[in-house]
Amino acid sequence: MPPVLRFEPIPHEGLEFADTVLVVDVIRATTTAVAFLEAGASELWFAPSHDHALALKADGFVVAGETHGAKPAGFDLGNSPLEALRANVKGKRVVMSTTNGTRAASLAARSARRLALASLWNLDAAARWAQSAARSEIAVLASGKEGRFGLDDTFVAGALFARLSGEPDDGARAARLIFQAFENPADPLQVAAAGRALEAIGLGYDVGAAAKTNQSQTVPVLAGSEGPYLVFRRTSL
Amino acid sequence: MPPVLRFEPIPHEGLEFADTVLVVDVIRATTTAVAFLEAGASELWFAPSHDHALALKADGFVVAGETHGAKPAGFDLGNSPLEALRANVKGKRVVMSTTNGTRAASLAARSARRLALASLWNLDAAARWAQSAARSEIAVLASGKEGRFGLDDTFVAGALFARLSGEPDDGARAARLIFQAFENPADPLQVAAAGRALEAIGLGYDVGAAAKTNQSQTVPVLAGSEGPYLVFRRTSL
Repeated sequence: MPPVLRFEPIPHEGLEFADTVLVVDVIRATTTAVAFLEAGASELWFAPSHDHALALKADGFVVAGETHGAKPAGFDLGNSPLEALRANVKGKRVVMSTTNGTRAASLAARSARRLALASLWNLDAAARWAQSAARSEIAVLASGKEGRFGLDDTFVAGALFARLSGEPDDGARAARLIFQAFENPADPLQVAAAGRALEAIGLGYDVGAAAKTNQSQTVPVLAGSEGPYLVFRRTSL
Repeated sequence: MPPVLRFEPIPHEGLEFADTVLVVDVIRATTTAVAFLEAGASELWFAPSHDHALALKADGFVVAGETHGAKPAGFDLGNSPLEALRANVKGKRVVMSTTNGTRAASLAARSARRLALASLWNLDAAARWAQSAARSEIAVLASGKEGRFGLDDTFVAGALFARLSGEPDDGARAARLIFQAFENPADPLQVAAAGRALEAIGLGYDVGAAAKTNQSQTVPVLAGSEGPYLVFRRTSL
């Protein structure tokens, strides 16, 4: 039986997953997560709050994240994929706390059998990982923006579904149509609320960077949890 | 200031609305609701459960609705727009209880300032009603199917947004793209999970019927609530 391809456009209480989930927050958390592992971080942790992230500083973690796009007080780094690629994180553990992406991942982790982070940077690799061991379902959870539908994440979901084999649900069909409506990935990212919000605070370069496809073969795969933290390790394929 | 055009693809706890909301369950609750008022019902009530609907029978209400597409035990009528159009409801009150549409409307009614029901049958009229007195926002809430994204309702949302003036959010932009991807309204309705489920139980004719555009100038507008019931009255425009 081919897996069901399922799209969930909004993280919300009550969502349950049975099998494989790809979490997408292309602007910018899941792009930045790929970048940290690509830059050599030994592990990437997602924290449920800024305080939880800061609490790991004493253990030698590099602390990264954002509030309304900006680096929170006390954090080492923001939530920038370009900054993450250049960061000195080789062999270190990185912990991230962001507004949308890390929360969506926490929600999905409650029930998913397998969970990984996807973006345009690791598009083909994430699709291969999802397809490789899916049993009944491959779901893509879009992180959206503060509970609202995100055009950017939906475009990426459609790009993933275009690479996956299975039986699309209504949402996967819709996401594919959104994907097909754009020739250039930068367009849906720039028109999306998330892209415009970054542009407005002078971080538009990160939107252009996040629109680049297949920059990496790295898939951040959920290895387990440590208390309230999610621990991702690098899988290359 | 033009209103924000906002699309909410999934009814879920925590959703809040500030202004004007159109609830869409094109297959079939909001199409059937238009049909009952078109057929001369004096009022249309939405009940929060089948038991609540049946409780009004003693007061002379016509009781209509469905479970998995079929008429529940004790109900006078199913949830069929074609059946509703022919039903003997002139001057009578009708109460409906359905799986998705009536629940989505209850959720939206908690916070909306103005609420009405939209379908392809009353597409232009519903858009005119929404635009006429919107202040800050016109939201379209898609009822979906048991908490999942519905291609059918998203197509109708896109058709509404194509008729509305305002500043689209990411979801409204996406819904418009979905609307533009189909030439024939019957196609997205037939491919949608809701349409296929009806086809599978021999009710495919209702899907074709629901795909007809601008059959009616009737807009079911929320007049108020009676305990746990929502009371809709006919507005023509």
